[in-house]
Amino acid sequence: MVKMDLEKLFKPKSMAVVGISKKNPLSPGRIVLLKNEFEMNVKVYGIYPTGGDIEGVQLYENLEKLPEIPDLLVIAVGPDDTLGYIQNCADLNIPAAVIIGGGFAEIGIKGKKRQDKLEKVAFDNNIAVLGPNCLGVYAPPLVDTIFLPTERITRPPKGSVALISQSGGVLVDQFFVKFNERNIGVSTAVSIGNRAVVDEVMLLDYFSKVDPDTSNIAFYLEGFKEGRAREFLRLARESEDTVIVFFGGKTREGKVATLSHTASLAGDFKIMYSALRQNMVILPHSERELLTSLKVYDVLSHRKNPFGDNVITYGNVAIVSVSGGHGVLAADMLRTYGLNRVDFNKEEKNQMKALMNPVAREIASFNNPIDLTGSVLDTDIENIIRYLSDIERIECIILLLLPYPPNISFQIGRRIANIISTKRKPVVCFVPYVPKYSLIIESLELAYIPVFHSIKEAVQAVSALKQRTRIDSVKKGNVYWD
Amino acid sequence: MVKMDLEKLFKPKSMAVVGISKKNPLSPGRIVLLKNEFEMNVKVYGIYPTGGDIEGVQLYENLEKLPEIPDLLVIAVGPDDTLGYIQNCADLNIPAAVIIGGGFAEIGIKGKKRQDKLEKVAFDNNIAVLGPNCLGVYAPPLVDTIFLPTERITRPPKGSVALISQSGGVLVDQFFVKFNERNIGVSTAVSIGNRAVVDEVMLLDYFSKVDPDTSNIAFYLEGFKEGRAREFLRLARESEDTVIVFFGGKTREGKVATLSHTASLAGDFKIMYSALRQNMVILPHSERELLTSLKVYDVLSHRKNPFGDNVITYGNVAIVSVSGGHGVLAADMLRTYGLNRVDFNKEEKNQMKALMNPVAREIASFNNPIDLTGSVLDTDIENIIRYLSDIERIECIILLLLPYPPNISFQIGRRIANIISTKRKPVVCFVPYVPKYSLIIESLELAYIPVFHSIKEAVQAVSALKQRTRIDSVKKGNVYWD
Repeated sequence: MVKMDLEKLFKPKSMAVVGISKKNPLSPGRIVLLKNEFEMNVKVYGIYPTGGDIEGVQLYENLEKLPEIPDLLVIAVGPDDTLGYIQNCADLNIPAAVIIGGGFAEIGIKGKKRQDKLEKVAFDNNIAVLGPNCLGVYAPPLVDTIFLPTERITRPPKGSVALISQSGGVLVDQFFVKFNERNIGVSTAVSIGNRAVVDEVMLLDYFSKVDPDTSNIAFYLEGFKEGRAREFLRLARESEDTVIVFFGGKTREGKVATLSHTASLAGDFKIMYSALRQNMVILPHSERELLTSLKVYDVLSHRKNPFGDNVITYGNVAIVSVSGGHGVLAADMLRTYGLNRVDFNKEEKNQMKALMNPVAREIASFNNPIDLTGSVLDTDIENIIRYLSDIERIECIILLLLPYPPNISFQIGRRIANIISTKRKPVVCFVPYVPKYSLIIESLELAYIPVFHSIKEAVQAVSALKQRTRIDSVKKGNVYWD
Repeated sequence: MVKMDLEKLFKPKSMAVVGISKKNPLSPGRIVLLKNEFEMNVKVYGIYPTGGDIEGVQLYENLEKLPEIPDLLVIAVGPDDTLGYIQNCADLNIPAAVIIGGGFAEIGIKGKKRQDKLEKVAFDNNIAVLGPNCLGVYAPPLVDTIFLPTERITRPPKGSVALISQSGGVLVDQFFVKFNERNIGVSTAVSIGNRAVVDEVMLLDYFSKVDPDTSNIAFYLEGFKEGRAREFLRLARESEDTVIVFFGGKTREGKVATLSHTASLAGDFKIMYSALRQNMVILPHSERELLTSLKVYDVLSHRKNPFGDNVITYGNVAIVSVSGGHGVLAADMLRTYGLNRVDFNKEEKNQMKALMNPVAREIASFNNPIDLTGSVLDTDIENIIRYLSDIERIECIILLLLPYPPNISFQIGRRIANIISTKRKPVVCFVPYVPKYSLIIESLELAYIPVFHSIKEAVQAVSALKQRTRIDSVKKGNVYWD
């Protein structure tokens, strides 16, 4: 297959937009033109048959009148006119295009014929076409072709995760909103729509091998593009990045929808899952597990990965809480996620007891889960975390950090972060998701310690770290995947 | 067993607090005294051996010096002094007490002996003793004996759910924080600690039969109190309220913790679960399912229940979204939760098509899930919801309401609420949990339409409604539980 220059989609020097309405401020073309002009760094040109301006931004009569040949053309017109513009790209050597509109394979035979024509022009001329029927590209700080008004969208922070979604809605909602809520960073986001030309395989190739800002590649797919699964598997196995796929349309009920949606066929998921797993693709069971995994992998990708070279091989954890019930609930989930309770011997229990303040010492419990009780002081939590960090057979600490006890100070997050950043023992924290505790949450996350807002997510995070160790080992040829 | 007057715990005319420190502003007794004095409606008296005042609040030298015999005594002293105060309750005819401190059965043999003495005095004298080793009672607007500083706690809204928790941490965190986040209302919350005297059975009895403000009773337990399971089952089956139990310590890993925690023995969960189910107790599989169920049951309990007499018997749903991917993900979950997709015939599809604006009509999909697309207008959503509400075989509509399409207005929540409130067809909504969309969320919730912030919760909510129908039927003797 031809290698297209996908970099022109994500890092264009300049772009042009066709399909701007002077009457309707909410027309997709107009929204894309103005958000790129006012909010993004790319040089952007608007095309309008009679020229003039829109909200003070100059418009050009046609592509030939532009002061330069743009790297990227965003096409927001009807399906037949779209074909004309793709021909223009070929004629003018515009190397990339985003087609926002529908009316192609997703509407049936008539549309399929249009899409065939589109594909022929694009492949013959090496034009990296995204879509049709898509939101296109969000590649901060350069480009944003999402035709939905920015003020309605929640933009995620900048980070290591490339997002590729067959559903634009899933991209801006399930991913953007929840990434922002959880502080997970995005490098580039791509809505592939009908994926007539640029597909999941080309994007996996690009983000694995070309894009220096991406270390984790996450897909929402409703099945692979026909004939492309094998190549996807090969690239996933070769990739140094973590590859994660979340599938929609896994059930008969869901398949009814995918057929009507972006013209994909839901494959045989059981066989596919097994092949994907063998090729080191991570397959979360739920949206929540997907998000939890991406959050820890994003942290690991950071230059200042707080856990250094410490990895979780066996899943041996210690649980520390100030609430007995929280410890119980976390312990209840360990086995489901392939993790184990470390046992403490009598000497260790006595040593921990000796590290505590005299009141809490008498009522605290040093089984695992450890319950430091509501009589805890900051220094008790610090001492115990420091002590556990030095026990080699503990691979990870789950710290259920409830700030309700009266003597826990607002410094606690900072104090814990300092210990983790020097000891480098993996620690995942649970802190209640309440605005007044953002002081604690932020002091941990500023030091790249991942904080979660449910017990289940904290446990899932350790499981995700363990899974990553195994995948890295296999990719380096050290052990076999079981 | 003796019937104690639990109302004195939750609706005392007056209360007294012992164990106040003049030196330490964070001492439990002092926190309880001042929060009740400044924040709650109960008349509260502080006891201090030398009298005087604390932060301007008068203190009394002992219980005998109080201007009246209080209904409730909050005891925040060491375990041996606690026994003395319980004897005082007997001598002075104080009918109820909350024991905050530990040092009883949870610490072993020595403590168990103390607890035996405590139980004898309490049962002999009919004193409703809560604890020891607990947070006590939060019964707004009257009483709050939670000794954690109020400014650290998130208080849930007022509503129909009585909460009874064996773990204080689970009560104030898993319940309070997440109830507040999800707008679920609490009538009374109880932390039972060692449940030496007042236990889950007595509380189930009280909230079922006595308390007029409670319609749903939720428990966090790590096993039943010894010998009390049978009575619990009987009361649960008789209760007109919905009874929900969430268990901790279900696994071997979790049991390690419960033994050290509040001196309970985790039972054989498999047998217990089956007995509970047969007696119409709802057993959520996860914290999230627990919260989702409580949210819908809280709504149903409201005088203005928006769904009227409409019930979900078979679980036949229609899914409406403006994003294909969201529809797929929701449909994928139906079977797991015992729900079914309704199929539309050609005529119905054409009728729905005719109700849409000309642009969206051409690209929308009227299979189930219905995808109205990003070209949707408010009126399209209104027309489709109204249309589906009149189809009898649809028992519930799952509306995945993404406000990203440019033509959806801020009125949309209000418009949908008005339709539901007149049609009374059960509708559960998903709206992204983003501050800027609280305008839409609030307009629905003001009309008691439950709004969820994940697709999974919306689907779980329908399942919870279906479960409630079955339980109500069995309790009324109509059908058998399968």
